[in-house]
Amino acid sequence: MTATGDSRAPALPPRERMSRSAAQHIRRKGGSGTGLREIVVEADAPRGSLQHYFPGGKEELVSDALLWTGDVAARRIKRSLSKLKSRAPSALLASIVDAWRRDLTDEQFSAGCPLVAAAADTAATSEQLRHVLRDAFDGWVEPLSESLVDRGVPLERADNLAMVIIAALEGAIILARIRRDLIPLDALVLELGPVFDAVARPAAPGK
Amino acid sequence: MTATGDSRAPALPPRERMSRSAAQHIRRKGGSGTGLREIVVEADAPRGSLQHYFPGGKEELVSDALLWTGDVAARRIKRSLSKLKSRAPSALLASIVDAWRRDLTDEQFSAGCPLVAAAADTAATSEQLRHVLRDAFDGWVEPLSESLVDRGVPLERADNLAMVIIAALEGAIILARIRRDLIPLDALVLELGPVFDAVARPAAPGK
Repeated sequence: MTATGDSRAPALPPRERMSRSAAQHIRRKGGSGTGLREIVVEADAPRGSLQHYFPGGKEELVSDALLWTGDVAARRIKRSLSKLKSRAPSALLASIVDAWRRDLTDEQFSAGCPLVAAAADTAATSEQLRHVLRDAFDGWVEPLSESLVDRGVPLERADNLAMVIIAALEGAIILARIRRDLIPLDALVLELGPVFDAVARPAAPGK
Repeated sequence: MTATGDSRAPALPPRERMSRSAAQHIRRKGGSGTGLREIVVEADAPRGSLQHYFPGGKEELVSDALLWTGDVAARRIKRSLSKLKSRAPSALLASIVDAWRRDLTDEQFSAGCPLVAAAADTAATSEQLRHVLRDAFDGWVEPLSESLVDRGVPLERADNLAMVIIAALEGAIILARIRRDLIPLDALVLELGPVFDAVARPAAPGK
């Protein structure tokens, strides 16, 4: 769910460089706060390339940045879940939170999730972006939900629990950035981990 | 935690009208997306009044809007908790979520929490705003935590659980806005309500 990665990677074509650079800016200061000029400069793209690569303007650039973020995060979630040795649902929560713990520390709490930032300032004004955001979040909830089922969580509760994980994690990232500490993420693992394990216990299948 | 209220209320002095109008804009399109000119017009304030009432410029206006939001929300949380008849911690969660359910429906999912919106686009760039945001969130976690203790939640877990409630609620509001449905809020009450009740059960005090 993190969106790191060097936005200046020179091997990438200009369109991708601009997209990734935009994602990095959005997760620091939102969609509205992200200037087009700085994206072009940072991506080391030729002048006029924005119009060339993104004829739809800023909405298209932000949309592309969010699509990229959503895909990267979904792939990371899947990879991290497939590597997990523990069968406990709490291990799944811990592994996702850990990725964010590292990211927040690396970025000194200056960057959050690009999707949340875009949701806060553009979800109400652009239907196109809202659909991209919805698809991205669905793309995270799905593998999480499947993984919970694999770990013994009843099918009818897995989607809800996966959504609670994503919601609580996104909220905790916001609180962590405001506080500049990891206590909200720690609280999540500490308090919700045992809950997920209890749901998956075969002894209490109907709970 | 909602921040409705008529920002045009004519009885209020211009400074308060501008603050409240700003809060309404911020929760729709973020801090960066909120224009000063539209605030002055909407608050029906005389030209030049922004400089007069907010010599610190936009940062001071946003800061004031967030302070106001934080205070109103904290008072609402306290009032709603003091009125609750049920002793169950899940009733406390349900009551807070219900306030947001109404707000999201009334606003047709176009407005979220002003504090989250400001956190997403300004927390990294303004220390002053970050402190206001931190105080506001602390002002919600505290009464929630006290109320959880009143309802039998062990003291050492109450702060963590209160933080998880706020984090999960803020995340769920974001997801609800993106989806334009209340499923993320429903999932929260359904999945976390019984958890809080189980923590408070006298039969499992050490859990």
